[in-house]
This record gives sequence, structure tokens and C-alpha cells, in this order.
Amino acid sequence: MQALRLKQWHSEPELEEVAVPEPGPGEVLVQVGASGACHSDLHLMHEFEAGALPWGPPFTLGHENAGWVHTLGSGVRGLEPGQPVAVVGAWGCGTCRRCLDGLETYCERPDLAPVPGGGGGLGLDGGMAEFLLVPAARHVVALPEGLEPTDAAPLTDAGLTPYHAVRRSWPKLGPTATVLVIGVGGLGHLCVQVLRATTAARVVAVDPRGSARDLALECGADLALAPGDDLVAEVREATQGVGVDVVLDMVGSDETLATGAACLRQLGDLTIVGLGGGTLPVSFFGVPYEASVQSTYWGNRRELVDVLDLGARGLLRSHTTLYTLADAAQAYRDLASGTVSGRAVVVPNDGFRP
Amino acid sequence: MQALRLKQWHSEPELEEVAVPEPGPGEVLVQVGASGACHSDLHLMHEFEAGALPWGPPFTLGHENAGWVHTLGSGVRGLEPGQPVAVVGAWGCGTCRRCLDGLETYCERPDLAPVPGGGGGLGLDGGMAEFLLVPAARHVVALPEGLEPTDAAPLTDAGLTPYHAVRRSWPKLGPTATVLVIGVGGLGHLCVQVLRATTAARVVAVDPRGSARDLALECGADLALAPGDDLVAEVREATQGVGVDVVLDMVGSDETLATGAACLRQLGDLTIVGLGGGTLPVSFFGVPYEASVQSTYWGNRRELVDVLDLGARGLLRSHTTLYTLADAAQAYRDLASGTVSGRAVVVPNDGFRP
Amino acid sequence: MQALRLKQWHSEPELEEVAVPEPGPGEVLVQVGASGACHSDLHLMHEFEAGALPWGPPFTLGHENAGWVHTLGSGVRGLEPGQPVAVVGAWGCGTCRRCLDGLETYCERPDLAPVPGGGGGLGLDGGMAEFLLVPAARHVVALPEGLEPTDAAPLTDAGLTPYHAVRRSWPKLGPTATVLVIGVGGLGHLCVQVLRATTAARVVAVDPRGSARDLALECGADLALAPGDDLVAEVREATQGVGVDVVLDMVGSDETLATGAACLRQLGDLTIVGLGGGTLPVSFFGVPYEASVQSTYWGNRRELVDVLDLGARGLLRSHTTLYTLADAAQAYRDLASGTVSGRAVVVPNDGFRP
Amino acid sequence: MQALRLKQWHSEPELEEVAVPEPGPGEVLVQVGASGACHSDLHLMHEFEAGALPWGPPFTLGHENAGWVHTLGSGVRGLEPGQPVAVVGAWGCGTCRRCLDGLETYCERPDLAPVPGGGGGLGLDGGMAEFLLVPAARHVVALPEGLEPTDAAPLTDAGLTPYHAVRRSWPKLGPTATVLVIGVGGLGHLCVQVLRATTAARVVAVDPRGSARDLALECGADLALAPGDDLVAEVREATQGVGVDVVLDMVGSDETLATGAACLRQLGDLTIVGLGGGTLPVSFFGVPYEASVQSTYWGNRRELVDVLDLGARGLLRSHTTLYTLADAAQAYRDLASGTVSGRAVVVPNDGFRP
Repeated sequence: MQALRLKQWHSEPELEEVAVPEPGPGEVLVQVGASGACHSDLHLMHEFEAGALPWGPPFTLGHENAGWVHTLGSGVRGLEPGQPVAVVGAWGCGTCRRCLDGLETYCERPDLAPVPGGGGGLGLDGGMAEFLLVPAARHVVALPEGLEPTDAAPLTDAGLTPYHAVRRSWPKLGPTATVLVIGVGGLGHLCVQVLRATTAARVVAVDPRGSARDLALECGADLALAPGDDLVAEVREATQGVGVDVVLDMVGSDETLATGAACLRQLGDLTIVGLGGGTLPVSFFGVPYEASVQSTYWGNRRELVDVLDLGARGLLRSHTTLYTLADAAQAYRDLASGTVSGRAVVVPNDGFRP
Repeated sequence: MQALRLKQWHSEPELEEVAVPEPGPGEVLVQVGASGACHSDLHLMHEFEAGALPWGPPFTLGHENAGWVHTLGSGVRGLEPGQPVAVVGAWGCGTCRRCLDGLETYCERPDLAPVPGGGGGLGLDGGMAEFLLVPAARHVVALPEGLEPTDAAPLTDAGLTPYHAVRRSWPKLGPTATVLVIGVGGLGHLCVQVLRATTAARVVAVDPRGSARDLALECGADLALAPGDDLVAEVREATQGVGVDVVLDMVGSDETLATGAACLRQLGDLTIVGLGGGTLPVSFFGVPYEASVQSTYWGNRRELVDVLDLGARGLLRSHTTLYTLADAAQAYRDLASGTVSGRAVVVPNDGFRP
Repeated sequence: MQALRLKQWHSEPELEEVAVPEPGPGEVLVQVGASGACHSDLHLMHEFEAGALPWGPPFTLGHENAGWVHTLGSGVRGLEPGQPVAVVGAWGCGTCRRCLDGLETYCERPDLAPVPGGGGGLGLDGGMAEFLLVPAARHVVALPEGLEPTDAAPLTDAGLTPYHAVRRSWPKLGPTATVLVIGVGGLGHLCVQVLRATTAARVVAVDPRGSARDLALECGADLALAPGDDLVAEVREATQGVGVDVVLDMVGSDETLATGAACLRQLGDLTIVGLGGGTLPVSFFGVPYEASVQSTYWGNRRELVDVLDLGARGLLRSHTTLYTLADAAQAYRDLASGTVSGRAVVVPNDGFRP
Repeated sequence: MQALRLKQWHSEPELEEVAVPEPGPGEVLVQVGASGACHSDLHLMHEFEAGALPWGPPFTLGHENAGWVHTLGSGVRGLEPGQPVAVVGAWGCGTCRRCLDGLETYCERPDLAPVPGGGGGLGLDGGMAEFLLVPAARHVVALPEGLEPTDAAPLTDAGLTPYHAVRRSWPKLGPTATVLVIGVGGLGHLCVQVLRATTAARVVAVDPRGSARDLALECGADLALAPGDDLVAEVREATQGVGVDVVLDMVGSDETLATGAACLRQLGDLTIVGLGGGTLPVSFFGVPYEASVQSTYWGNRRELVDVLDLGARGLLRSHTTLYTLADAAQAYRDLASGTVSGRAVVVPNDGFRP
């Protein structure tokens, strides 16, 4: 079969013929319906050095995947060939205390995982190929009726990541609460939708681009602001002076973190989702009393069930541009040049229905 | 190998020679170190009719199990032969929303489970044999250092069941709270220990037997009372008139449920753990405002990790009487006649160390 | 001033001239803008016997109140004459552990409260008069901008009661959850709106009246069903067989409670809100595992802030029919005969603006 | 009456004759039984400049207070002259959303509070006098039987502060959890006791002083370590490599915060309690995934009820050295020179019993 593979660090991916994998005991072979092209893949192609990660090329790209069950390894129950599924991206050891809690993103025995800290498309072969080998049936989640793999694939990362970040702050997001979403790109516009669907909080979005602010308002934000000298004052005014209950920073630069902290209310949450490389200095008097600062990373399989449900009901929708597998390398070039509208999604088995 | 098997409903179990099972893909063969004899097994032997359950004899008894990993089926990671382990008793489908949350006791696709609503010793072969076949590695939990299989086995049910019931009420069990434990038998005396170890709540225990009340006090109860006409008044007095925050009814008869409800505080919990067959009529004015009434059933694998940890630290300890496998039928007869001191535990591979 | 007073049990209320009260230390005199006529007042007029409650007539009716601060007693801070406010209905002692938590509905020292278990319009003089004396400033909540007293008054009970019941079940109301609302009357149609505004759960409403089912759908229910032989099967089908996560029974009869329990999922909530006088027998095997059964009663002041916020944003709206104080007795007669459209609200100071 | 007063910034406090205050409406006059001398008072005497705070001298010192109700202002219910009480220290506006939730430490309308961001002994007259005027009855909490004012006073701050910090982390403090307490001084040794009484978590304490480590072990710590090059490795080893679930930093310097972060587990809590002035740089990869960093400040009245309950049951006990009011200035000098054993507590009405 054809596969878009990263063959070494600091290189462009290439289409290459590889063998179709055979599922071993407990494994599942998925026929790929859609595989999202993620910005983080551009980092993999261009920025990492050998040894920086516990894994490396060559591997097939694509960590946002959905499709249909093709072949079951021995011992797998509860799945049927032909069944539409999405794939949970973070593959942990399955036996440590975090994995027992379903939190494989935070696996504490990465040495026992299929690859330490990675997954399909991240050290192991991913979904930019006709078939994807999933190392355990627990990483496969049934698609709800009405949700196509092309819609589901981007939700497995760009939808799941903000969902996880929002969900952990639900107890702080009652009707009188306000949440600030910084950055209305691929993750941010889904974040606004998740907030609108699951809470009664007021949503204030921040983005320097007018088109992104328009998108935020279409997605249900109550207010969309541009960064600048007046931003903190505008946010304070919109909250009767007390500040926002939750900041979800989808950018994560020094500037956005400082802005988020300046807008934050006592007892609030400031969650760093974006990989902008910024740092926030936290001290007793430097951040409002008992406001929590933390990162979040991706999400878990139970949350993916929720996200797919929101997608099937039309409450969470990512705009997408589709590419064939033959054009997958082009998808990444378009992504790099900023010319993709919405999420770039590669469709390896175009026209296939089980 | 030898196995103590229930061969038909309404019969006594018999020792019988059966083949040592072979673990298939994803399965684990455990060499049994200890298997607890549970009161519920007596119900299985004597009270059930064919068709009442979705499963039935013949099967090997024993659903409280610990021992050592013996052989791994293909595809199993993260376990080593010789490793001491306890076995989680409730075996669900592993893929429904409850199982994804780790709540296999409440599996919603029992048709996809190894046996619907059962497990090893409950429809499938259990641990009263030299070897036990566990159908998935996720049902096996490493024993912490210092905890022997003979101590661990009873904790997998008699310890895990009250732990689960206590844990769900933790938010109501701060320092000023009082909890009423009704029935200080096999589960009840472990329940008192769990409360003492994990909360600062006052513990009031109720049992008609003086020896059970003494045991409750040894286990850390603040007060031990006999049922009777004055009980509700005594409990009200011990709580400045407001009643107890949580009732854990390890008996579950009409009488104990009525007593529990009469002692309960507004916003409290009344949890039915015991299978005494009782019913509580719940109405708007019949139970204190917003007091919740519910059953709980067994516990999950993440909670078993906690329970074993408490056991290894000496904070949770079941008194036991050991029997060889040859004497296992006698263990049940002693259990039926009420002459066992503590939990009856069968040791199938006596003297074995891996 | 004029006041609509219940002068004895088993009687109709009468308009009567009474003195305008003077606020003592810590008290607040509110000029009433609107006072809702509640079904429970009909019970007070027609069904109670002397001695059944710790309080009784004569008193002025009206426990759903909003208006404007008129005069402050000595020592009151943070309020201004003329400020629009809503009144929290349940007046506790203010010092017991429940009151310290803001839960005055569940006050544990009713002997220290202004009236044991009651409030304005419930033993003490209520809002069907030109002025209402509120015994402590903490029972007064500022109206958010854009919400008129006539809209706010019914929210203080008919909105607050379902809000409290929904809020306690939030952790069970994620995207894949389903909630069953039984009874789409004055409280039920607000309950549907609260669920729609604050959760992503699917809402199934049940009512025998076609108009009520239409109202449920307008308020955002996903499905509206009539009671009957097929109801449980229809609900099970709508939930892929697992049942609903939460039942909010706004009726509370034997029949609706039995229906709710039959539709319920393991680990769910069945909350009795309606005063229909029904009883549900709860036993280990008679209700799904770990499903909680409880009543809820009214709500607290912090929740009222949330409810008013939803009202001001147009997310929670009660249809109302307005009456002058002179016609207040007629409002109750219309309520009794079922001819009121929406909530009957009495406007004692018609045309007044501070 | 005599009172120990701070008369200007950068000065030593002086005993002075002042008038006994008269309680106005809603206020309570407390006869002081004990008033703790807190390190933060030394900062007030020596480090603050005029204008740095929204309040300033002259005022009577003492913000850790207990005693007996002496006189009730008009309109106060539920308290009796002679009743032993403790005083909640943070006095908010009582009407903002935080105060409605009982969180007066985080009052959002300090302009409406008796003094913005302060309280008795912090801008207003405190307890180092024969009588203390408390501006609202809600700041007064009944002492449980068996707890003397001299034992209760230090618990209102040195006990309440760690209790609040521990309580918010309870959900992360199950049996397998480990918590690191940095600094075993006045607050730290009470923190260890709170953890021991209310959780089953393992407690690791860190302090450079051998006597403090001994005290930690007496208070129930499982392990007491000295800071140094090996500390992080020792903590990792004690937690099987995963790190601690919760860090409670009672020091709060750059060094202790860095140590805490280095010991922390994914999904953990790092809580800054001490006023050591340190800063922790927080970034996506610089702190474990989803570990929360926050400060906490003091505690609320509902938590004080819990703390006093633990005190009355002997589960929380501060060692104290008593001083007369005449020697109160000496208490501060001893505190400054580090020669006080335990908490310095001033007893203004020595020998008094109501």
C-alpha cells in the first residue's frame, strides 16, 4: 500500500510503498477513511533533532484518524469488520495507575507502551496510508451514526484537546462565569463551540485577525476582541471588574500567558493548551489568589466518545479541506504556507464504503 | 489439576480433576495463591434456580483471588511470570462507556463480556483450583510489596466493596461528619477500617452482637451501639440532633434500611451494600430533604489498587482462617454453620513461592 | 397598605389594610414589584390543618418576590434604596452549618430562624402587598441589568427549584447523557430551558398534554413523549437500551416515580421535585445499581444569582400573566381552575419605577 | 481597657488605654480569651510603607482570636452572652458572589467590606485587648465542647490556612497518593496533622532543622527529609519514580518552589502557602502535564468549624506558649528572636471564665 512517510528528521515526507500490516493478538487493522494534517507535524518535519525524543523516523505520518475496522487480531471482542471508528491517538502502557484511569496521555510507564510518549503518526506508523495498525482494541471508538470519518478525524485531536481543557474547568463554568479563549485557529474555534454546547458561561475570544474574530462569533462567542493595550481593561469591564473565571490559552506565548493572567479572577483557571513556548512567572502575589495555572495535553478515550457525540449532533464541527493520499505532501505544504481553509484532511481510500 | 466445582444448582461443590487452562491471546494464567470463600457462594449453592441468572453451573468456585502470574497469552505486556497479583473480579466487555470509565461492575454490554454479569467463580471458572484463567490482562493488578496473596484475596471483595461505597461518599465525610455502619461482619469491619484510614468522620457502628461491637471499636469506631428502641434517639443525640451524614447498610433488610433512614441527615447518603433483600419506601417527605438512597455493587480495578495499598500499609486487614484446597468444601460448611473466625481463605498451592 | 392575606386555614385569602412595616436592625424593606402566585399556595388555602405545620395564618401570601429596595434597617451595607432586587425565599437561622454553606432551605436550627421552615408568604408576611419586610440583607439579591421584577419574581421559585435540581446532577450530564423531565408545567418548562442552557445532555420530556409537549420542544427538548404503555420502551430505544442518566420528576406521583425508575440507567439520578405525594420502593435489585434517589427542595441564594443571570440573558424565561393587587384573589381562582397562561404574577405597585 | 496597638508603620506596638467598643446593629462584642501572635504581624511592624496597603495604623494587633460572647448588637440571633467562640479572621462585604459562597477571603467588593482586604488586627482593631468588636455575627463560630480559647486561637489561622490548602486537594489524596509538605514550622506541623487526620495519603515532610523533622514524624509524617542535592531523587524513589501528587509549600521561596515542581507528578497540585516571596516559572514543558500551580490564602468560616472540630477531638493541636496582655509586646520580641516554643498566644483576660 501507499503511505506518506517521514524518513528522517529535517526532511519533507514522501509517498512510499509499504506492506499492509497484519494485526497480531489484541490488535486491530483499520482501513483509513480520513487522516488530519496537524501543525505539530510541521514541527516534526522541520525542527526536531535526533535524540530529542525517545522515538524518531522513519514512520508514516497522521495522528488524527478515523475509518473502518478491517481485520481483528485474535482475542479482540466487541468490534465488527466494516464498523466505522475513530482512533484514540495516545497509546499508553494500559496498566499503570493513569492508564487504569483511562488517562493514557499521562501514562507513567512509557517504557511499557508501544512507543514511549508517542503513538500512530508519532514514532509509529500513522494514518496517512490505506491501513493503520492499532495496537489495542481499546484505542478504537465506534463512530456515532451520522458522523463521517472525514468529519471525525480532525475531532480526535483538534476537537479532543480543547474538550479536555474545557471539561476539567466545568465546575468553574456556571451561568455567571466568563471564559477567555485566546487564539481562534484550528483548536480555538472548536474550543468556543465546546464551551457553547456544554456550559452557560459567557465566552470572550481574542485573536488579532478579524476573520478569526468573525469565526469566533459564528461559533457562539459573546464577544471577540483584538489584542492590544486596551484588552485587559475591556475584559475587566465585561466582567464587572472581577476578571474571567477561566482562560484557555490556545497560543501559549509569553504575551498571551501574561494577558491571560492579567484578566484572571481569583479562584480561576489558566490553562496552557498551545505550544507557543511561553513562560508565566507564578508567585503568591503575582497571580490572583488561588487561581490555578496548568497545561493540558490532548484527551482520553472517554472524552473522545463525548466529542464524537457532539460532532454527530452538529454541535461541534470543523471546517475541512480534503486531499487525496497522492496529494498528502501538498496538504502539508499548504498548511505550512497558511493557505488551507479549515483543517487539511487526507482521504486515503477515496470513495470507499464498507 | 484439582478444582472445587459447583456442578449444578442446589448442590454442594465437589473437588474434581480438570485440565489446566491455556491462556489465549490477551489472557493471563494465574497460579492461585489464595481464594476467599464468600457468603454469596452459599446463595449460589442453595438458593438459585436454573434460568434465574444468565449463567450457571458447572464452574469452579472462588471470586476473591490472588496469586502469581504463571503464563502470559500472546500480546500481553507489562506483566512478568512469577509476579504477585490480585485479580479484579468483575469482568465486563471492556468497550462500553462504563467499561471505558473503568466501571466494569456496571458494564452496559454484558452480551460482549466473557459471561454476562459474572466473572471467575461466577459462571466462569474461579480461583478454587491451582490455576485461574483471567480473560484479559486489565483484570490483573500487581500486589504491593509486603502483601501476601492470603491477605490480598479477601480484600478483592470484602475490602473492595465497602471501599467503593465509602469512596463515593468522601465529599460528605469531612471532619464534622458522622457515618453509621450497620452490620459489623466480614464487610462491615473492613468498612470501619476504610473510614478510619481515609476520613476524619466520626464512625458509629451498629450490631446486635457484643463481639461485633467490640470488633468495631478495635477497628476504630468511635461508638458501637446495639439495635433497639433507643437506637435512633442515641444516634440523634450523638449528632446534636441533626442525624448522620452517611449510612452504610451492610445488612440491607427492611429493618436496617428503616433505621438508617430514621438516623439520616438532610443531604446525606444512605447506601445499600448488603443483600438482605429489604426495601425502603422513598418519598418527598418520607426521607430527609435531598438525602440520596442508592445501592453499590463491588468495586473497580483502580479502587482495588487503593485497597491493596491500604492492606500493604497495615491500614486494612481482614482476619482469616486458611484451608487447603482439599478442605475447601469444609470451608463452605464452616461458613454456613457460622464457625469460621474471620474470612475463610482457601490456599490451593500451599507452600508455593515463585 | 393593602395586602392579600390568608386569615385562617381552609379559607380564601382576602385583601386587607395593614401597616407598612418598619425595618429593624439588619432588615430590609422591599417595595414589591412582582409576586408570583404558586400552586403550593392553593395547598395552603385548602388542605392544611391547624398544627400540621410549625406556623400558620394569618399572614400575607406571596413567596416569589422581586422589587426595589425601599428602606434599609440599621447596620445594612451594600444595598441602595431604589436598587432592583429579587428576594431569596427560604429564610434560615444563618448560623448553623447548613446556613454557613448557604443552604438555608436545609437549616438545621429552625428554632432560631424567623419562622421554622418557612419564610415570607409562608408563615410570615409575603409579597402580595405594597411592601415586604425581609429579615436579613443576605436574602436580597441584586437584579442583573435588563431583568424586570415581573420576570424575576417567578424565577425565584419556579426557576430556582429546577435549577437546583439540575445543578446537583451536572457531573452526570455530559454530552452523551440523556435526561428525562417528567411534567412540563410551570417548573418543568423552566427545567428544560435550564438543561438546554447549562448542559449538552439530550432532553426527553414527558407530559400527557400535547400543548405541554409542544412547549417542551419550543424550550429545547430533543424529544417529547406522552405517558403510556410504550413510554419506557421508547425511552430505552432513544438511549440505545441503557436508560437515562437523570430523571427529574416534576410531578412526583407513584406512577411517575415508577416510570422514572424504569427508565433509569445504572449510576443515574432520580430526583423528586414535584409534590405529588408518591412513593418509590427502593431495594438492591429494584432500582439500577448505584442509581441515586432523592428529593430536592427549592434552591439557595448563590443559585438564584445564576438563575437571574440566565433570565437576564434570555436563556430562561417564564411566560406570565399579570394581575393587579386588587385582582390577586382572582389570580388564585384562575390558577385553581387551570385557566392561567404561564405563571400568574401579581404587580402590587403597578407603574411604579424608583 | 488595655490594648496592644500598632501606632504607625515601622514601629513596635505599644500598650495603650482605649475605650471598650459598643456593638452596633448586627455586631458582636467578644471578650477575648486568647489572641495568637503571628509572624505576619512582624512584617506589619517592620516592613510596610504607608500606602502599600489600603489600610494602616493605628489599630490593635491580633488576628487569631477566640473568647466568649460578651454583648450582642441589636438584631443578632443565635448567640448567647458567655458562649465560647472563635472569630473568623477575614471580613468581606458579605454580599458579593464570593462572600455568598462563604469565601470572604476572596471578597470581590472590598470597598463594601469593613476594611478592604483586612479584618480585626489587620487595619481594624484586633484581639490583643480585653474586648474585640466583631462587625457581623457570621464571623463568630461556636467553640465545640472541650476546646479552650487558648487552643482555639492559633487554629483560626495557623490551623485554618493549611486546612484550606489540604481540603482543596482532597480529590487527589486517596490511599496511593503522596504529599510533600515543605517547611515544618507553625503552619507546617499543623498541615501534617490535618493530612494525617483527613486522608490516607503518605506524607513526606522537608525541613533543614532536625528538630522540625522530628516534629513532623511525631505529627504523623511517614518520612522526613532534609533539603539538599539528593532530595528530589529521594522523593522520586519514595514514589516509585512518579513523583508526589500534591506539594504544599509552607515556605514559598524560589528554591522550595523549584524543589516542589521537580518532585511533582503529572496531574498534581503545587500550592504556595508560605509568603517567602519566591516565583516559579510555569510553561508547557517546564512543569509536569496538567499539574496545577496556585496560591491559597487563609480559609473560610465553614472550614473553621471543621478545624475546631479536629482540635476538640485531639486530632489537631498546636503547641503554645502563653503571655499576659502586659507581656504581649514581649511575645512579639520573642517571636522575632526565634525563642518561642510553638505558637505565642496572648491571654488578655487571664483567669476569666464566663
